[in-house]
Amino acid sequence: MKRLFLFPLLSVFIFAQTNYIQYVKPLTGTQRMGHTFPGAAVPFGAVQLSPDTDTLGYEKNGKYQAEVYQYCSGYQYEDRTIVGFSHTHFSGTGHSDLGDFLIMPTTGTLQLNPGTADHPENGYRSRYSHANETAEPAYYKVKLDDHNITAEMTTTTRVGFHQYTFPQSDSAHIILDLMHGIYNYDGKNVWIFVRVENDTLVTGFRQTNGWGRTRTVYFAMAFSKPFTSYGHAKYDTSIYRGFWKKFDVRTNFPEMAGKNIRAYFNFSTYENEKIKIKFALSPVSTEGALQNLVAEIPDWNFERVKNESQQLWNVELGKVNVEMLTQKDMETFYTSLYHTLLGPTVYMDVDGRYKGIDQNIHQADGFVNYTTFSLWDTYRALHPLFNIIQPKRNGDMIRSMLAHYDQSVHHMLPVWSHYANENWCMIGYHSVSVIADAVVKGNIPFDAVKGLEACVTTAKQKYYDGLEYYMQTGYVPEDKNSSSVSKTLEYAYDDWAIAQMAKKLGNEKVYAEFIKRSENFNNAFDPSIGFMRPKMSDGTFRKNFSTLETDGQGFIEGNSWNYTLYVPHNVPQLVQLIGGNKRFSYYLDSLFTMHLPDEFFAHNEDITREGIIGNYVHGNEPSHHVPYLYNWIGEPWKTQEKVRMILDTKYSNTPDGLSGNDDCGQMSAWYIFSALGFYPVAPGSDRYSIGSPLVRSAVIHLENGKTISIEAKNQTAKNVYVQNILLNGKVWKENYFIHSNLMSGAAIVFEMGAKPKKR
Amino acid sequence: MKRLFLFPLLSVFIFAQTNYIQYVKPLTGTQRMGHTFPGAAVPFGAVQLSPDTDTLGYEKNGKYQAEVYQYCSGYQYEDRTIVGFSHTHFSGTGHSDLGDFLIMPTTGTLQLNPGTADHPENGYRSRYSHANETAEPAYYKVKLDDHNITAEMTTTTRVGFHQYTFPQSDSAHIILDLMHGIYNYDGKNVWIFVRVENDTLVTGFRQTNGWGRTRTVYFAMAFSKPFTSYGHAKYDTSIYRGFWKKFDVRTNFPEMAGKNIRAYFNFSTYENEKIKIKFALSPVSTEGALQNLVAEIPDWNFERVKNESQQLWNVELGKVNVEMLTQKDMETFYTSLYHTLLGPTVYMDVDGRYKGIDQNIHQADGFVNYTTFSLWDTYRALHPLFNIIQPKRNGDMIRSMLAHYDQSVHHMLPVWSHYANENWCMIGYHSVSVIADAVVKGNIPFDAVKGLEACVTTAKQKYYDGLEYYMQTGYVPEDKNSSSVSKTLEYAYDDWAIAQMAKKLGNEKVYAEFIKRSENFNNAFDPSIGFMRPKMSDGTFRKNFSTLETDGQGFIEGNSWNYTLYVPHNVPQLVQLIGGNKRFSYYLDSLFTMHLPDEFFAHNEDITREGIIGNYVHGNEPSHHVPYLYNWIGEPWKTQEKVRMILDTKYSNTPDGLSGNDDCGQMSAWYIFSALGFYPVAPGSDRYSIGSPLVRSAVIHLENGKTISIEAKNQTAKNVYVQNILLNGKVWKENYFIHSNLMSGAAIVFEMGAKPKKR
Repeated sequence: MKRLFLFPLLSVFIFAQTNYIQYVKPLTGTQRMGHTFPGAAVPFGAVQLSPDTDTLGYEKNGKYQAEVYQYCSGYQYEDRTIVGFSHTHFSGTGHSDLGDFLIMPTTGTLQLNPGTADHPENGYRSRYSHANETAEPAYYKVKLDDHNITAEMTTTTRVGFHQYTFPQSDSAHIILDLMHGIYNYDGKNVWIFVRVENDTLVTGFRQTNGWGRTRTVYFAMAFSKPFTSYGHAKYDTSIYRGFWKKFDVRTNFPEMAGKNIRAYFNFSTYENEKIKIKFALSPVSTEGALQNLVAEIPDWNFERVKNESQQLWNVELGKVNVEMLTQKDMETFYTSLYHTLLGPTVYMDVDGRYKGIDQNIHQADGFVNYTTFSLWDTYRALHPLFNIIQPKRNGDMIRSMLAHYDQSVHHMLPVWSHYANENWCMIGYHSVSVIADAVVKGNIPFDAVKGLEACVTTAKQKYYDGLEYYMQTGYVPEDKNSSSVSKTLEYAYDDWAIAQMAKKLGNEKVYAEFIKRSENFNNAFDPSIGFMRPKMSDGTFRKNFSTLETDGQGFIEGNSWNYTLYVPHNVPQLVQLIGGNKRFSYYLDSLFTMHLPDEFFAHNEDITREGIIGNYVHGNEPSHHVPYLYNWIGEPWKTQEKVRMILDTKYSNTPDGLSGNDDCGQMSAWYIFSALGFYPVAPGSDRYSIGSPLVRSAVIHLENGKTISIEAKNQTAKNVYVQNILLNGKVWKENYFIHSNLMSGAAIVFEMGAKPKKR
Repeated sequence: MKRLFLFPLLSVFIFAQTNYIQYVKPLTGTQRMGHTFPGAAVPFGAVQLSPDTDTLGYEKNGKYQAEVYQYCSGYQYEDRTIVGFSHTHFSGTGHSDLGDFLIMPTTGTLQLNPGTADHPENGYRSRYSHANETAEPAYYKVKLDDHNITAEMTTTTRVGFHQYTFPQSDSAHIILDLMHGIYNYDGKNVWIFVRVENDTLVTGFRQTNGWGRTRTVYFAMAFSKPFTSYGHAKYDTSIYRGFWKKFDVRTNFPEMAGKNIRAYFNFSTYENEKIKIKFALSPVSTEGALQNLVAEIPDWNFERVKNESQQLWNVELGKVNVEMLTQKDMETFYTSLYHTLLGPTVYMDVDGRYKGIDQNIHQADGFVNYTTFSLWDTYRALHPLFNIIQPKRNGDMIRSMLAHYDQSVHHMLPVWSHYANENWCMIGYHSVSVIADAVVKGNIPFDAVKGLEACVTTAKQKYYDGLEYYMQTGYVPEDKNSSSVSKTLEYAYDDWAIAQMAKKLGNEKVYAEFIKRSENFNNAFDPSIGFMRPKMSDGTFRKNFSTLETDGQGFIEGNSWNYTLYVPHNVPQLVQLIGGNKRFSYYLDSLFTMHLPDEFFAHNEDITREGIIGNYVHGNEPSHHVPYLYNWIGEPWKTQEKVRMILDTKYSNTPDGLSGNDDCGQMSAWYIFSALGFYPVAPGSDRYSIGSPLVRSAVIHLENGKTISIEAKNQTAKNVYVQNILLNGKVWKENYFIHSNLMSGAAIVFEMGAKPKKR
């Protein structure tokens, strides 16, 4: 288990001829609502060490304020000050947490409060400019103007490596702000515990409430140079009787604890002196963190660690070797690929121990345990992408989900889980889709029978989110449970996925039960208006109803126009419900061309103008499959033009390059699939719906040693229409590819043209 | 490790001919300030399951209120209501904590608040009467009048076993109050976590702040009968986003968390139905608690567990088989012996794992880990008593203290530690006395060289409580650190103990260094007034000074009259300082006969009128050696009469039978030693100063198979003077016994008489 990074390094010489990391622009998505972070991380790293420019956010009267949303990743490109560098970040989520253990180097008078964006001089934060900022995979560098300090950082899987270049100063400080956090309302910090083990080693933990209800992260922090003195301030009234009359616990007292604590370490520095910090995390204990620290970075060689970690990226990025039409597209592609590889994140010590959702310590036997499962997002394209380019890791993620199931007092697979907590965000039980997709595609490095049992048990947990009603009546009644239509539709899809898995495993009973449940989407369709519509428990449809309005209409983060199309597993029946091919075509055309006034979505954070085409919302997930639906009604050229339009207009290589939250890689996974020319409309099926490739060529290096090569002949910005497809030299007439065909090695040639090829 | 209780059971047939537990009155000390608890426990048990009658206590403006002191054990005999039964209690301390996991059975309308003593009907608490109360070792029974429920409880080492006999009721409840605690001010509870694993099993933890700064106790709770429904109320504003729109988390939702939580479990009961609960604790995890539960009580046989646990008491109590003059004395003796065996308590799971003071999990290899070291009290007589009757356990306690040292970020042995926390209560570093006493007496089932290193390192921790000044100048200056004289005197004694250990181990360097430090008591003596007196850093004695006043005079919990005599390790030099034998005799006589007006101690909780004889304070520890000092000036008969007077007047078998806090067994250990006829004036010496036995006869069964037999010929209430002593049939002329003589088996005969025998 030790130094896991060594193994992939052996592969470097096979794929990493190209310097792929040059194409990755981690600042992409940091402006507006992409919610990505620009800092340093290795693929799937537990430590994601990144600057926080602000973390405003507070709960008020049971509602959280807008800043919580804006600062999901802790960084906003427009900001002009950096508060410091913290070690954990979500990539692209729509809700905030983490931001553990903020470190900030300062000079001059010690200031322990962070100050404000308007008046950084009143605190420890610093002004900076993008001109002095470098963001690369596994490397981030910035000049902190107010302190005249250059900050650099890289990471391994579990250790952040800081390198601060100081000016000459007899008043240099490293601040460790343990009360800092992302979404840091009053009461978020439950307990902080810190030990100054000696003059170069500090350990401790931070326990928080909130999105992760009972969440603790442990750390070990090593300095390259002994501090001369240290201390802390406590900002709460928690009692410590111990020091009465005995100690000054604020200064040079090696044990700190309380709800809100900021610690500092003092140094004298000479001009350009580098002070380095290794900061290891553990889900288990400070002992585990120290073990991780020693195992992953045994020395103080910053350059070596940086180079090795960047090589890790070259290895992973090099698995998909593409040529694009433009530099911009190259950067957009590899930045997207980079964003798909930031999560889920490793959640165990080097010895395989981790904290389970039962808050007990478990041993991961034979797999890497992962956390941060944003499943409502990532089941759609991210996990299917992993089934192609990261099958081993995807198998381990499923084993992690099954461990979660084993440890769950609800006997459920994760819904949205992070750091040994279920936060229940969004809807559905989409773990089952991830597991079914892997099973159906034959990527089964886990106990599939147990996987099926976990899926079935999860799908029958009565008290979960309207499920009891759904099982009784075939739909979630809106008067019993809000967002009822979205739930009915997504449950129906998930049930279909379970059925597919059961079929593959030969379990006819489960197949029969769940294939029947998968038809429940019909129950939410109101034929009188031709839309999905919330139904009441008495069987009538809700009276007041808008098909355009996003909120309060029986859907979640989507309106009926978009959500009505959420029957990815039975498009032919959906087409029938809508009224046949023609009406369906008209529906889709309208969706992409009609005007959706702001008033229908402006109050919903997850839907922004930038992410919208007509009434089609690409900046959020529920419609990600929609552009591909033309394939089912004999109009593949419309899919092709829509896909290329989205690839061109909704993604870019600039800070504002994401048109919505990246959502732990789902937005980016859509890009990768679509740029390669196909998309998994219904995970749990072994088919990929064909779109229009953006690549000029691609070679996908599979873990099984095979390759998928893709060539787009006559590829130009305007030649968006597929004229012919050759699969392994033979004409391929279907509008889908089959997973097994690809994975056994495939050579795909798309012949592109400027005009639709209608059959 | 499993079922540790089985091993001692084998010995039952050797010693346990007598039913010793009939003499134990656990209610002794529950009235006024004894601070003992009446509930159920096995010897040194981790679970001490006892009724709490009130737990009022709150911190206000940095001062804690009187109730904190009054309710150290959770129970006051005068109270007329019982709040419930909690699982952890200190025995006889002067400060409060614990009271974890209160259980209360109720009938009728569910009430989740405890109500008040004046209006128990407004809450779940109940009236009770002592007439319906039975308190025995390992068994407690009471009728809860308001609910018509009979409560019974017994325990094993780590599991509390409750048995509640209900009336017929379709509204019966078991309340699990997780916010209840002893010394339970606002903010005490840091976090509560509960899982309802199934309809008969609940797990979780309680994390608290306060005396134990970072303290967590885990539990597993099994019911003999499935509950029909359950729920909880949360009394804080901690956020749980998870349930928004999804669940009613208050009812039948199996995961509860927050800062302040009360849970309940509902039943229907028939007349006289017994509902039983097994409640296991762990310092490690809920998994550990469950493991403890299954290992220690595999079935539901309450009577068997009660009988086996009471047999454990018979075994331990039977190690000292005495005959006394009266039934009252028999009960006082065995109740005292019982109180000496309630702590320190086992602090590890059945598999040997425990939480260290570094908050990491450690494995106790080859020893039982203990916690709750009230060392300022217990070094005096309790640990010396253990070196005779519990040498193996005392060795394990020392190994536990050495593990604490290894894990301490201060590199110090415990001062006053409990539950993986150092609470720093009181003064000195008396761990060194405990270790030295064991080394000098040859009870060394630990690494003695390492023990010495730990003692030396502890005794040189500069930032600890004036130690830097003490090491520099030979005393603690009062202007630098308050209670300076007490500290100087106790450090000097501790240093002498280190020197004795070093001598025994052949470490001349350490011996020389610490025997020199042991003379520092001289520096606190003011010859101009003949008392110990606070000295300032400029070398002058403090001007305003009272030898009678307890507070603010340079002493802690004692006045100069008492504390001046605290040179147990060099009484001859103390006698010289006072002015020779005559003046010393006069000093002692005066101490026991003068009047100490209330005003000089009334504001000090730890000193009460009941515990005072003249100006001699027996109800608190600093003078416990004083009655024996007459032996050094050739007036042993005065020691004899004083000791008998104290045994007669300061101890009894009634609820008000303790004249001060039992202090984790120290008060009781004084009784046991003195009743047997000798006392360890200076632990770290192998000598016991001879007093006047209260027993008629005693047989002490040693772990090495030998016995010490004691016979007091002509023993009567008035024959308090020792006329002659025979040791193994030969006249013994010394006024001390030597440890090795006793431990190799000894027959002691005291010939008693009504008149002093002056030599």
